[in-house]
Amino acid sequence: MLNKDAVKAVIFDTYGTVVDWRTSIAVEANAVAQTIGFAEFDGEAFADAWRAGYHPKMKEVRDGLRPWTTNDVLHRERLEDIIPDFGLNDLDDAQRTDLNKAWHRLSPWSDSVSGITRLKRKYIVSTFSNGSYGLLLNMAKNAGIPWDSILCSDVYRAFKPAKECYLAAIELLGGEPESVMLCAAHNYDLSRGRKFGMQTAYVDRPQESGPNKTHDLKAEQDWDIITTSIEGVADQMGV
Amino acid sequence: MLNKDAVKAVIFDTYGTVVDWRTSIAVEANAVAQTIGFAEFDGEAFADAWRAGYHPKMKEVRDGLRPWTTNDVLHRERLEDIIPDFGLNDLDDAQRTDLNKAWHRLSPWSDSVSGITRLKRKYIVSTFSNGSYGLLLNMAKNAGIPWDSILCSDVYRAFKPAKECYLAAIELLGGEPESVMLCAAHNYDLSRGRKFGMQTAYVDRPQESGPNKTHDLKAEQDWDIITTSIEGVADQMGV
Repeated sequence: MLNKDAVKAVIFDTYGTVVDWRTSIAVEANAVAQTIGFAEFDGEAFADAWRAGYHPKMKEVRDGLRPWTTNDVLHRERLEDIIPDFGLNDLDDAQRTDLNKAWHRLSPWSDSVSGITRLKRKYIVSTFSNGSYGLLLNMAKNAGIPWDSILCSDVYRAFKPAKECYLAAIELLGGEPESVMLCAAHNYDLSRGRKFGMQTAYVDRPQESGPNKTHDLKAEQDWDIITTSIEGVADQMGV
Repeated sequence: MLNKDAVKAVIFDTYGTVVDWRTSIAVEANAVAQTIGFAEFDGEAFADAWRAGYHPKMKEVRDGLRPWTTNDVLHRERLEDIIPDFGLNDLDDAQRTDLNKAWHRLSPWSDSVSGITRLKRKYIVSTFSNGSYGLLLNMAKNAGIPWDSILCSDVYRAFKPAKECYLAAIELLGGEPESVMLCAAHNYDLSRGRKFGMQTAYVDRPQESGPNKTHDLKAEQDWDIITTSIEGVADQMGV
């Protein structure tokens, strides 16, 4: 049950919850594909394929099969993996480097900046992301997201859903689990947050994975807040 | 020599450089002393004594004589150490806890918020402090300091001048030492930053330790910027 008075910080899953990675990546992929002669490139399929390789690579790190590797490097590896499949071999190194930085320029959903700005009036607002530190800083600068701090994989050198991430965030924010509200569009993330004592806010993002989304179609537990936008979280937090 | 074009982030020593710890602590100590009957408490001497115990305690952590301990805990230990010397034994636990949180409410120098706000237009602006994560977040909220991120001892579990602090900040900010400008009122800190490739900005803070300041009376090297305020740093960075 929501205990509003205990909340001091609201931390946000970022890819999918705050920013629309799929559309942003599709737009940038289409643009760079055009520069090498693709008039009708399928940027959305490309974005899906890029993202699909990300979770297995994080899992390799989580499972100890490879040493700590930052999200930026994993993105680049996956980009190189799929370039041949999408006929993009003609992209030169500078174009590949710039395309990889598309993840630093993801666009927020229309309610994200306004909702986070409202929450910031009363609460600490922070990323809680598997993204790289610099990536999240650049994204915030580019999109005008007014974070108070960057909590991310690089800080604790672990990827969600590893428990180290949740425990480190709670500790850095002062050690009281209930004072931290985790806001996410993903049930697995909230489930882990709740396990470690965080309060939880589910934001439905039906467009996150395009028209064929198969996961996180609805709130799967009685999260403390269940809503359809970050403005909705602000409404329920009374700010 | 200043290479302005390379700079992407300006990170700030905080105690002394951004905030006036001595006056802030003195005011709060005077106020709480009055509540237990001290009309003429010497808050400034108390602040000096509190601060004086902080460096030796950090050194114990740095030297491996004790395990990682956050700044908030070191402050509290030192507070308990000096309470008898200053006749404050009548402070109850809640008053001591609140007084320890005076460090979360330090006031900025008059040029700090405006200078950082100007720099934030173009650069990432972050703490680079030995303070606790939550302490720095609360301070920012209380004082209106618009940090993009909190880089501090809790993140890398080390206290400046340990090299881990400088290397971690550079890595988290993208790995290019020259892209990071360290702004500090303390020559030792800038000296370490320069050693690891950061650019350096010295801000003179003659009032940091009151009228009898004995250290950091002037720039002791040819720092890339030498000035008397954070507005001055913004001037030289052209923002």
